[in-house]
Amino acid sequence: MKYLHTMVRVTNLDASIDFYCNKLGLTELRRHENPGGRFTLVFLAAAGDTDAQVELTYNWDPEAYSGGRNFGHLAYAVEDIYATCQRLMDGGVVINRPPRDGRMAFVRSPDNISIELLQRGQALPPAEPWASMPNIGAW
Amino acid sequence: MKYLHTMVRVTNLDASIDFYCNKLGLTELRRHENPGGRFTLVFLAAAGDTDAQVELTYNWDPEAYSGGRNFGHLAYAVEDIYATCQRLMDGGVVINRPPRDGRMAFVRSPDNISIELLQRGQALPPAEPWASMPNIGAW
Repeated sequence: MKYLHTMVRVTNLDASIDFYCNKLGLTELRRHENPGGRFTLVFLAAAGDTDAQVELTYNWDPEAYSGGRNFGHLAYAVEDIYATCQRLMDGGVVINRPPRDGRMAFVRSPDNISIELLQRGQALPPAEPWASMPNIGAW
Repeated sequence: MKYLHTMVRVTNLDASIDFYCNKLGLTELRRHENPGGRFTLVFLAAAGDTDAQVELTYNWDPEAYSGGRNFGHLAYAVEDIYATCQRLMDGGVVINRPPRDGRMAFVRSPDNISIELLQRGQALPPAEPWASMPNIGAW
């Protein structure tokens, strides 16, 4: 038995690719357009860890995607949590839970999917602007 | 960068372990009880694929966990989709989307998390009772 992916639905494919790839740092592996079913599937993964994927489902006919409490978050280890959060923040993403401890942060996707970022290995030494940055919203 | 886990919240830890481990076939890797925070975390994974995990969060103070449409499902490849579905069905789990095609099935966790099962490799030859089993509910 083997984990394949976590599927999330997205309302705007371009905004989602921008978030998951350009800002978060995942890589697009493959894309499947299904004109009959009027949907597009995009499979993403961390480079070098392509077995564990995220599947984005984009339905061409608009639908509003609310969140629920039974799903919590997707978690990724990152090489430098400050660099990742800086790239996200520079891209306009709210850092809901800044990495004040050099170890853990939370952000949300454009469709409100909570993403946990964990520093790989040891926590980084506390550093500004993160150390004094307050929480924003929920995650 | 590396995928770590997908976190889901559960209302009943015993029922969830029974579903995810005894019926679905995942293995409990570790458990962390936090009496101060009044929560328990349980990390699960497919045996032999322990890098990609599911984190169950059980909050000791009851809360109702509804679902949302932004999260879709968790997907696993299985060795024998008929055997997995039989074990789930014998355990009282509704097979929402039976593997009529020998390839794909959907079930739901006790907290309504949708789980996709995909036959590893080639689809199995169509076989009863699956081939003529209707869909039940949504997934």
